[in-house]
Amino acid sequence: MLNIMGLGLRGTKSLTLEEADALKESDLVYFEIYTSISPGNTVDSLSSLTGGMIRLADRNLIETDSEIINEAKNKIVTLLVTGDALSATTHNELRMEAQKAGVEVRIFENASIITAFISKTGLFNYKFGNIVSMPFIYENFFPVSVYDRIYINYSNNMHTLLLLDLKDGKTMGIQDALGILKRMEDSRKKGLIEPERIVIAGIAIGSENESIIYGNLDKVMEYNPPGSPASIIIPATINDNEREFLEAFARKIN
Amino acid sequence: MLNIMGLGLRGTKSLTLEEADALKESDLVYFEIYTSISPGNTVDSLSSLTGGMIRLADRNLIETDSEIINEAKNKIVTLLVTGDALSATTHNELRMEAQKAGVEVRIFENASIITAFISKTGLFNYKFGNIVSMPFIYENFFPVSVYDRIYINYSNNMHTLLLLDLKDGKTMGIQDALGILKRMEDSRKKGLIEPERIVIAGIAIGSENESIIYGNLDKVMEYNPPGSPASIIIPATINDNEREFLEAFARKIN
Repeated sequence: MLNIMGLGLRGTKSLTLEEADALKESDLVYFEIYTSISPGNTVDSLSSLTGGMIRLADRNLIETDSEIINEAKNKIVTLLVTGDALSATTHNELRMEAQKAGVEVRIFENASIITAFISKTGLFNYKFGNIVSMPFIYENFFPVSVYDRIYINYSNNMHTLLLLDLKDGKTMGIQDALGILKRMEDSRKKGLIEPERIVIAGIAIGSENESIIYGNLDKVMEYNPPGSPASIIIPATINDNEREFLEAFARKIN
Repeated sequence: MLNIMGLGLRGTKSLTLEEADALKESDLVYFEIYTSISPGNTVDSLSSLTGGMIRLADRNLIETDSEIINEAKNKIVTLLVTGDALSATTHNELRMEAQKAGVEVRIFENASIITAFISKTGLFNYKFGNIVSMPFIYENFFPVSVYDRIYINYSNNMHTLLLLDLKDGKTMGIQDALGILKRMEDSRKKGLIEPERIVIAGIAIGSENESIIYGNLDKVMEYNPPGSPASIIIPATINDNEREFLEAFARKIN
């Protein structure tokens, strides 16, 4: 039996009652540290909740997946994933491979940064287009397609949620992401990433240190809100109702 | 103090550990029954968890909002919302009005049908465009804009999640929703809603009776999967990886 379990956004505090029960029944618990990060004390807190050892599952363990699946053939194995259980493709890969190996898989959904951040800003979730991911940039890797996808949303009057990449347990910061977008603007020159463009940044959504700020792109970039994980919304037209919410629920950077 | 608390998709079993604690400390608990529905035993189960009376909050109570806000001025009041806490605009309205009245508001995010359904099908969440809602249709109310919005997504190669309306505690069924889309096709004639188009239906996602099926539109419509609440995905191009997932995780209707 393999449980793929969303941990939500608050560490063990956001485990559901049903998840906490399933966790206590588990013979073996893996904590996935490859696609996202959790509050700092999560491993200790999980250990004391389960009364046992927590194994950390990195990219190698998740993507080769034979160890987890082999264990799950005759044990109750739980893989804990920050946020929702299946938001990253890699967890659906593991789920499919487990099924092929004859292992029963149970999915426990939980809160995701996607809905939590969007709804907390007050922007309407049905006005969002494609979610876009911003990867780390290297000398020979500068995917301007990121800009193009935000632009398609914008042209269709859809807001864009921009998720920032994670590497070695650190997520990209707001300033870095906006800096890359400005370089993409220099390349495409469509007027999407201008100094006066309103952008919204969400940091550590769901945690005690949560902050949501907004303001002109250059102001937000200068302010460079600290903390992680962070995400950005590039809005299209913000209607009156959304504007009133945003002003009530987020802090303006001038 | 006003807690706006997502209940997730499984009734009280999907309350988080932190939510369960906050619920026990509450002086007054409202259960919102206007924007979505929960498993049938949820009210009884909530009553026994809180050891007290649960008040049902209907449209009138949520939208006039003075009763809840007045109570929250000197009591700990919790509003429980199925799914995520803030997915419906009306809960952000309440949150804003409470803030204006000087009431401290705490938000507890939880799983949403939006991410849970999409991720369980195996379709990639970053390939979805605008979420579209299908309202009940009346003689003088036939909003073909629903079709137009799905079409914009489709033209940009984005999948559409179609959420079905709720009225008097009942959600629209799959057959009714697809029937309305077919009538909209007759009006717009853009070839979007054709008999051979693949559609995916999700019923009671997260619950014990969950089912996800897919197939040609006419086959799914004929089969008319029972149960509620239900949602539909109208996919654009499904790539090879998504197709492999869909075949593994959903049941094909022939």
